[in-house]
Amino acid sequence: MGGYFSVVLVSGGLDSAVAAAMAVREGDVAFLHVNYGQRTEKRELEAFNALADHYGVGKRLVVDLGYLKDIGGSALTDRTIDVPGGDLAREGIPVTYVPFRNAHMLSVAVSWAEVTGANRICIGAVEEDSSGYPDCREVFFHAFEKAAGAGTRPETSIEIATPLIHMKKRDIVAKGAELNVPFELTWSCYSAEELACGVCDSCLLRLRGFSEAGLEDPLPYATPGHNLREGGS
Amino acid sequence: MGGYFSVVLVSGGLDSAVAAAMAVREGDVAFLHVNYGQRTEKRELEAFNALADHYGVGKRLVVDLGYLKDIGGSALTDRTIDVPGGDLAREGIPVTYVPFRNAHMLSVAVSWAEVTGANRICIGAVEEDSSGYPDCREVFFHAFEKAAGAGTRPETSIEIATPLIHMKKRDIVAKGAELNVPFELTWSCYSAEELACGVCDSCLLRLRGFSEAGLEDPLPYATPGHNLREGGS
Repeated sequence: MGGYFSVVLVSGGLDSAVAAAMAVREGDVAFLHVNYGQRTEKRELEAFNALADHYGVGKRLVVDLGYLKDIGGSALTDRTIDVPGGDLAREGIPVTYVPFRNAHMLSVAVSWAEVTGANRICIGAVEEDSSGYPDCREVFFHAFEKAAGAGTRPETSIEIATPLIHMKKRDIVAKGAELNVPFELTWSCYSAEELACGVCDSCLLRLRGFSEAGLEDPLPYATPGHNLREGGS
Repeated sequence: MGGYFSVVLVSGGLDSAVAAAMAVREGDVAFLHVNYGQRTEKRELEAFNALADHYGVGKRLVVDLGYLKDIGGSALTDRTIDVPGGDLAREGIPVTYVPFRNAHMLSVAVSWAEVTGANRICIGAVEEDSSGYPDCREVFFHAFEKAAGAGTRPETSIEIATPLIHMKKRDIVAKGAELNVPFELTWSCYSAEELACGVCDSCLLRLRGFSEAGLEDPLPYATPGHNLREGGS
């Protein structure tokens, strides 16, 4: 496992925190955070820094992709489109999909990795049991890894690791608990920055994950009645 | 040929102007320009707008990738590394290579194309007779096109067109002349914004292209003695 120097994409959410904890055990790390004009930008950055402090990570890069807001097309960056909630069974691509967002983040990660000499990028993307975003699928990460190999120096070799890609949310929670991930420092809510709303898709997925793992989410919620452990799912 | 709606990456340089002229003949276009903290940022943006005005293009997007300057690693964005000049025969990757830059630009283009419904991205990258940048190679564009297909909505289908990829600079100049490209509106110099320096790699390539095409470059140069038509090359 040794010998890795990983650029870890840390949004500040639950999944990225677990992916970061895994990378920390496997070698040197650098933490990368991306603002892109999303509603909960400030709160996510706070979570990023809290996690980096927790793991004693000095190599940090925060980049601003504010232009994604200008491009629009997503409820996460366009305040005229409501963030939906309360129904994880909807089909198709959610309106929270930010077109091709992960390609922007990975491009930053690859450039930074090439300059700093990192040999791996870790991203806590989840394909199943998750959002339905096309840029969270394993086939996309494989394709992007090939593009990174073709578009960088011949001596640059960067692996894109997606350790959570086929995990269920409950298993991610369990893995995080096993690694002592400080869940209380993370932030998953799509729509609020003070108290997690408890009703957006991201909150629902998180709460269901904790519930199914038989664990308590240490974050307070604005609508505790939505804790799925009590209602059953 | 009809039916194309192209997002054209227009740096404002010679190659992008010729690629834009080709796309304009083939359908609807939207012009995209990227600032990334390069030395000649202002002058290139001026060239972009002049070209968009010339072709009557209303759909314009200018995005700022200023974080590429923070990542560094290139003479184009780091003022402590000199822009080399005077020798096109150097081997290896030039110090003006901005790590994985074209992936950032293509990511923006793909996101914008997906939101606006464009079905093609045009970029005037040149593999041979050019810079030696790894992200200007055809193999990279093919790989990125696959990543774009995998990372966007199922109904989104975006072709990445590189019409100049195997052309020599002299043929690009000749093609531009045939299409009445307003060469006087373009900007290629890497190091100056008032008068093109005439000695950086980009100026040398451009001057050699005009010289070999038997045409006069309408741009004034700070060092007219470097016009290769007179010195032979």
